[in-house]
Amino acid sequence: LIAEILSIGTELLMGQIVNSDAQYLSRRLPELGISVYWHVTVGDNPARARDAIAQALSRADLVITTGGLGPTEDDLTKEMLAEALGLEMQLDPDSLETIASFFRGRNRPMAENNRRQAYFPQGALVMPNRRGTAPGCIVRHGEKIVAVLPGPPHELEDMYEQQLLPYLSKLKDRTITSKFLRFIGIGESDVETRLLDLFHSDNPTLALYCSPGEVMARVTASCPSGEDPSPLIEGVEREICDRLGSHVYAEGLYQSMPMTLLDLMRSRGLTLALAESCTGGMLAAQLVDCPGASDVFVEGFVTYANEAKTRALGVSPDVIVRFGAVSEECALAMAEGAKTASGADCALSVTGIAGPDGGSDEKPVGTVYVGLVGPFPERVVRLNLRGDRTRIRSLSCLNAQNLLREALLEG
Amino acid sequence: LIAEILSIGTELLMGQIVNSDAQYLSRRLPELGISVYWHVTVGDNPARARDAIAQALSRADLVITTGGLGPTEDDLTKEMLAEALGLEMQLDPDSLETIASFFRGRNRPMAENNRRQAYFPQGALVMPNRRGTAPGCIVRHGEKIVAVLPGPPHELEDMYEQQLLPYLSKLKDRTITSKFLRFIGIGESDVETRLLDLFHSDNPTLALYCSPGEVMARVTASCPSGEDPSPLIEGVEREICDRLGSHVYAEGLYQSMPMTLLDLMRSRGLTLALAESCTGGMLAAQLVDCPGASDVFVEGFVTYANEAKTRALGVSPDVIVRFGAVSEECALAMAEGAKTASGADCALSVTGIAGPDGGSDEKPVGTVYVGLVGPFPERVVRLNLRGDRTRIRSLSCLNAQNLLREALLEG
Repeated sequence: LIAEILSIGTELLMGQIVNSDAQYLSRRLPELGISVYWHVTVGDNPARARDAIAQALSRADLVITTGGLGPTEDDLTKEMLAEALGLEMQLDPDSLETIASFFRGRNRPMAENNRRQAYFPQGALVMPNRRGTAPGCIVRHGEKIVAVLPGPPHELEDMYEQQLLPYLSKLKDRTITSKFLRFIGIGESDVETRLLDLFHSDNPTLALYCSPGEVMARVTASCPSGEDPSPLIEGVEREICDRLGSHVYAEGLYQSMPMTLLDLMRSRGLTLALAESCTGGMLAAQLVDCPGASDVFVEGFVTYANEAKTRALGVSPDVIVRFGAVSEECALAMAEGAKTASGADCALSVTGIAGPDGGSDEKPVGTVYVGLVGPFPERVVRLNLRGDRTRIRSLSCLNAQNLLREALLEG
Repeated sequence: LIAEILSIGTELLMGQIVNSDAQYLSRRLPELGISVYWHVTVGDNPARARDAIAQALSRADLVITTGGLGPTEDDLTKEMLAEALGLEMQLDPDSLETIASFFRGRNRPMAENNRRQAYFPQGALVMPNRRGTAPGCIVRHGEKIVAVLPGPPHELEDMYEQQLLPYLSKLKDRTITSKFLRFIGIGESDVETRLLDLFHSDNPTLALYCSPGEVMARVTASCPSGEDPSPLIEGVEREICDRLGSHVYAEGLYQSMPMTLLDLMRSRGLTLALAESCTGGMLAAQLVDCPGASDVFVEGFVTYANEAKTRALGVSPDVIVRFGAVSEECALAMAEGAKTASGADCALSVTGIAGPDGGSDEKPVGTVYVGLVGPFPERVVRLNLRGDRTRIRSLSCLNAQNLLREALLEG
């Protein structure tokens, strides 16, 4: 099966957003033995969108459109698809009711425009949107298949995983299931070396993805419809966990480090305070980004200035003068101060040089200390990070959270 | 001028990398008044690459290819371009010498394959690569222009900025300059209405872009080479500033609200403390993301729990019980507490309901209070925001910063 990904949205052509949808689908489709030969992006322009759909249908077996499903007149993907296929648009009453109840649930009036989101080319199989108002759909046209997905990545990914993937995998009377494992504290080539023989398997298949500071593995199993692929996946999963031990920090594509850490703290009944210098609140913001963080996260101190470290956290000026604000000693004093001031069970601190200035030979840009105190022996680590300011700060947050995770697992 | 961006590389179709080159070029080309109508990606496949080049030439005035300039047999962009245009490939001795010296400088042998990187379609204007071995080129073909750029982003961006951008701006013996203005506290349709007549101008042209919570305008002027387009731009800019007043918060594509606010505070010699509840450190992190923030930003309190509001900021438990943690009274008490505890000149507070839970009829999800104290009358605003948790928190940060900006401008 040959596929084309057709993205529709002026915001892509203006460079306001990067086409991560095309990347996501391009990663996932090969799991099903589907080859992606083209990515095409056009704006919210009826004639060019229609032409692009027609051309995609002329050369691919499977066309997946992304975007252009919003409520406004600019959003025209379904209409242009109907035109290209010579189909009428029809109201889907179930979709209309779902959209109406979405608004009722939020105490917001439904605009007349939102009705457009309940119309589909005739004969379409509707895919409800569990994360937004715009449903997607699948249209069969002779031997060709067109799948219409929403543009926002979290909506698209959920719809793909829950609805389009099962549909496509049944085309060949097979069930295909994937599981994701996330690793920290180990590089891609190390993971590859330790799992080398597992890459030779045809079923399940194993693939690695890298992102800053972490590595992710996807295990994908395929079996005849009606059979359960889980045992196949579980066998490989156990093997991976045996070999990589506590480097495996999460299962699942969306299980992030902050979520993992909050779950772990919650299960132990522990609370947390933070003292941040170079990360400047980013670590706190990552925790608060998870709904329900308040069970665990008590208080954060953003002590960017040295005087604030002294005033809010009680770090002795002597420590700062003797060892510097970027030092083991200061990191530990910050963590201790945050624990005392907040009354939390644990406290994590970050102090470092995020750049672009402020580095020295001894402590170049990227030198970051993380301190940790709690109901276990205190610990402090020095990180030697590379990259720009944003990357250094992000990696500091990830590694700080992992320090606490490891302490909890060992404790 | 209508442009198409044609990316060539199997790694894009496999989803190994995201197409950030297309995004970069899509952001930059509108500065020159060039509209991008299509992005197309094909793999390292001769037939599909050639077809894609031919199609791009049939519908765009300017085709920019990215990728496919490496030394291996898979890298075929220049060869396919030559075929599509009916041109021979010719050795460029200067490029060969540059590539050879690149390897000599690194004490590495030059592979025979690297010679391929010194061949170009005949008549091409070669663009040396200052950050890698693969030179790019520009080929004129009748009225059409094809620019060939390398795939690695840091090579592409340097070549665009240093070589292609000046080339394109000199086309037709004209100098093209753009200026960006950023607006806050006013919606896109309002901006459009107030500037309606300015959109009718052919030179300078005016275009609007939206992103969450703000609107951006691009003013692009074009004039014969040797003349200065600045007066044209300044005329329109003055007009826009007159009509939109303090809604105009920044000039320049990359001048963000945190940078604007820090500059303004610095120029007044004022320092700032923050007290954050629902934004959970995000506001502090945005300020610290700007190098040099420490001149202004003294200290942040992330008081997510009510007890922390009381302990760290001295918010009376009575205020929280009577009015709630999400209230005018609590927002002001938080700001006052942060100012007192930190000794800063100004303090800004944010408390609200970011969702998905915690809303009520009176204070639904998206209700956020921002408090401000400083050397001016205290103020507090209620925001009624929409969207998911992340969006509500981001918009809270933007609006909080703007509240302080406005107070400084009025004060």
